[in-house]
Amino acid sequence: MAAVRAGSVKRVTSTANPVVKAVRALHQRKARAESGLFLAEGHKLVLDALAAGWPPTMIVALEPGDGPVADLAARVRAAGADVVFANAMVMEKLARRDNPQTVLGVFEQRVVLPSALRPGTIVVLEEPRDPGNVGTIVRTADAIGAAGVVLVGASADPFGVEAVRATMGSIFHVPLARTDAAGFEAYAARFDGAVVGTHLAASLDVRDLEPREPQLLVMGTEQSGLSDRLAAACTSLVRIPMAGRADSYNLAVATALALYELRRPLLAGAKA
Amino acid sequence: MAAVRAGSVKRVTSTANPVVKAVRALHQRKARAESGLFLAEGHKLVLDALAAGWPPTMIVALEPGDGPVADLAARVRAAGADVVFANAMVMEKLARRDNPQTVLGVFEQRVVLPSALRPGTIVVLEEPRDPGNVGTIVRTADAIGAAGVVLVGASADPFGVEAVRATMGSIFHVPLARTDAAGFEAYAARFDGAVVGTHLAASLDVRDLEPREPQLLVMGTEQSGLSDRLAAACTSLVRIPMAGRADSYNLAVATALALYELRRPLLAGAKA
Repeated sequence: MAAVRAGSVKRVTSTANPVVKAVRALHQRKARAESGLFLAEGHKLVLDALAAGWPPTMIVALEPGDGPVADLAARVRAAGADVVFANAMVMEKLARRDNPQTVLGVFEQRVVLPSALRPGTIVVLEEPRDPGNVGTIVRTADAIGAAGVVLVGASADPFGVEAVRATMGSIFHVPLARTDAAGFEAYAARFDGAVVGTHLAASLDVRDLEPREPQLLVMGTEQSGLSDRLAAACTSLVRIPMAGRADSYNLAVATALALYELRRPLLAGAKA
Repeated sequence: MAAVRAGSVKRVTSTANPVVKAVRALHQRKARAESGLFLAEGHKLVLDALAAGWPPTMIVALEPGDGPVADLAARVRAAGADVVFANAMVMEKLARRDNPQTVLGVFEQRVVLPSALRPGTIVVLEEPRDPGNVGTIVRTADAIGAAGVVLVGASADPFGVEAVRATMGSIFHVPLARTDAAGFEAYAARFDGAVVGTHLAASLDVRDLEPREPQLLVMGTEQSGLSDRLAAACTSLVRIPMAGRADSYNLAVATALALYELRRPLLAGAKA
């Protein structure tokens, strides 16, 4: 492994500092898209990222930064990241809230092409709008052992602060891919396995599938479910059983239930 | 059925109007607790409530209120509710956001004792903190056909605006109960069925349960899971299978997966 040049250490005390402004801008989607960077809040998430081989480019830490923060600062510097120590006022400005975490990490976004995802069970989301849903689905994909998440079309940004927070660190574990509807069609056509879409009007119950990897699980939008276009690219459509009077499940819940069914026989631990 | 006196009709144009102030105050937990009232936004939710036999005490509708809004106003008046027509400025003030819904309903809270819930599968939540989680769990409980949701201890308010929004109308379908830890212990001790708690350290896999109603599903807090006290009141503890590197599921997702397993054989539609 090539030697990594240790990161610099700075101290900032003014919210007018250019570094502060650049970090704070990452709350905006536009600045994230232009820089290719994103924010993750908290000591634990920076540790998760390091453990996953995804070091930050910079951390901002509450001064004086002794104890665990000093240890973390030394670790990220050794991985090449810059360390900025800031006072409480600057930290609140950066976090855009009261009582912010004591550490804020800046990371490079990682997005791959769908075809680069390893085989397994892959979750495909059509135009999810809610950042909390996207983040929760990434966390669930991690917990159920999915191989990746593909976002199709105009989606909430998985690297937005709210989405990253909802992943609880799984953003550093689950490979993400992005494409558009045509890209998905091409990917699904070449995919060497079942392409399972969920649809309220499907006649096949998800419990009656005999799931086998590799497989794609395709979920529609929060508002109107799977589009005809994406449904047509699926090799089977399934419905998630319901009782009661609700019209539908929340998207993150529906994705969890379907993903769980698709990996239920594969998850370790149950009796035969 | 006794005749219901038709509700009044008013028009307000000022955000200083006492009715506007009283309705707006329902965004605060304290005002909800004192009045026993809550807000539900949108035409669809008011229709859901009427269909569920839970008419509003009042609706506030964007003037002039013709077409579908006039029909809705007539229906709720016949059910005894007052109708207030308001301009766009007042509606935004009441909804506390831009582009508010055209109808806002004010409803009486309904909370029962746990012992008043009908037998079936009942979800018990220990001190859930996140209103979105509580609302999503109520929606899921509805969709999976649970008989009710019990909140134990210091919980997010299920009648808060964010929680009600997340229920997508299921707040009007799923009976809610509230108690404290001692009340739960007494309820669980008398409960004529399994009391199943989920616990990260449990040795029994939820897939190996043979679920049978009536049953309680007991879920711990977002931060630290089930307390020792509530765990001790359970007749069995189960874990939800995981793979990957996530530490845990989101609470609403974990509840959905466990509830789904507990009602999986009971949900209509799958092959034998």
